[in-house]
Amino acid sequence: MEKTIITIGRQFGAGGRELGKRLAETLDIPYYDKEIIESAAALSGLSKEYIAQNDEIVTNSFLYSLVMGTRTLTGQKTVEEIKMDAQREAIKEIAAKGSCVIIGRTADYTLKDEKPFRVFLSADEETRIQRVCGRDNLSEKDAMKKIHKMDKLRAAYYNEYADAAWGKADNYDLCINLSRITVEKAIDMIIMSVREPNCFRNI
Amino acid sequence: MEKTIITIGRQFGAGGRELGKRLAETLDIPYYDKEIIESAAALSGLSKEYIAQNDEIVTNSFLYSLVMGTRTLTGQKTVEEIKMDAQREAIKEIAAKGSCVIIGRTADYTLKDEKPFRVFLSADEETRIQRVCGRDNLSEKDAMKKIHKMDKLRAAYYNEYADAAWGKADNYDLCINLSRITVEKAIDMIIMSVREPNCFRNI
Repeated sequence: MEKTIITIGRQFGAGGRELGKRLAETLDIPYYDKEIIESAAALSGLSKEYIAQNDEIVTNSFLYSLVMGTRTLTGQKTVEEIKMDAQREAIKEIAAKGSCVIIGRTADYTLKDEKPFRVFLSADEETRIQRVCGRDNLSEKDAMKKIHKMDKLRAAYYNEYADAAWGKADNYDLCINLSRITVEKAIDMIIMSVREPNCFRNI
Repeated sequence: MEKTIITIGRQFGAGGRELGKRLAETLDIPYYDKEIIESAAALSGLSKEYIAQNDEIVTNSFLYSLVMGTRTLTGQKTVEEIKMDAQREAIKEIAAKGSCVIIGRTADYTLKDEKPFRVFLSADEETRIQRVCGRDNLSEKDAMKKIHKMDKLRAAYYNEYADAAWGKADNYDLCINLSRITVEKAIDMIIMSVREPNCFRNI
């Protein structure tokens, strides 16, 4: 397999982390999710805690920056800008090393010149509620609230930094709904896609 | 294979018709696209020409109906409503007969109780322009204009009648970008999806 970068966008609670890990294991390539936070911290000088707390959240509106005191009017970078620059640099360094699976953080957009294979994972609300209830020990009502909140944050973050629409089919190469398609089949589809043409029929 | 209804939404010029036909041939099941127009005409008493001319176009805004003289204020159905009712009935009759592939016309929404397998096909603008130039004998500029216009019409029509967002990934089971994924692979993915779990590894 040539160098292959697979980026995965995902709705909250759809199972993106599980699928991404298994995909990377199957292909025997590295997997990056929260690992990006550490690299971005090292590159920026900001604390891991700050970056983790503001992970995949957009906080750079002018008003927000003024209120939070993070905007300077002297042309210096805001903390948010330092965080985003470091994150982009971390993602580019990761991709430069070789094939990998990268979750979220607008990696598809940051790496657009490398033409990564761009996946988006969704699932029906019912499936996601069940997953989040079990995983985060929440009531169905609270799980639903969290899903809506997190999807809103991810969409706002993506739409701000990627200059494209989060979850819009034509922004990706393959979008899979994990309520109707098993994780195993989804992994097979992604592998089929990144391999040479028509390998499927020869497996 | 159990009864399987596959609905295909598609961007203009993405290659939905070609893929749909080949998918139906591969599965040896009927394919419906413009054939729906004839059934809707027969069911409604409206002419084939009228339905074809207004195929996948929303014309039922109150203002439009008033201007066009198609709205009655006496509680009778407008021509647009008669057309849409007949189209929905035609789609339900088609689905009742057995497995099939249905293109566009909000079939995914009309048949939602049957839980069809919902596909959406996209392609990058460049790919679509090339296809439309060749197929419709247009300049690149005119092909691009037509693509934008037709996508807008399809989105408006879908969003009006399906009460959902056209081309939004989580509204479908599988969204495939045909600029990066071959038609052959896309067909294989759809067949994998509608077959029993994990058949892929046993083919």
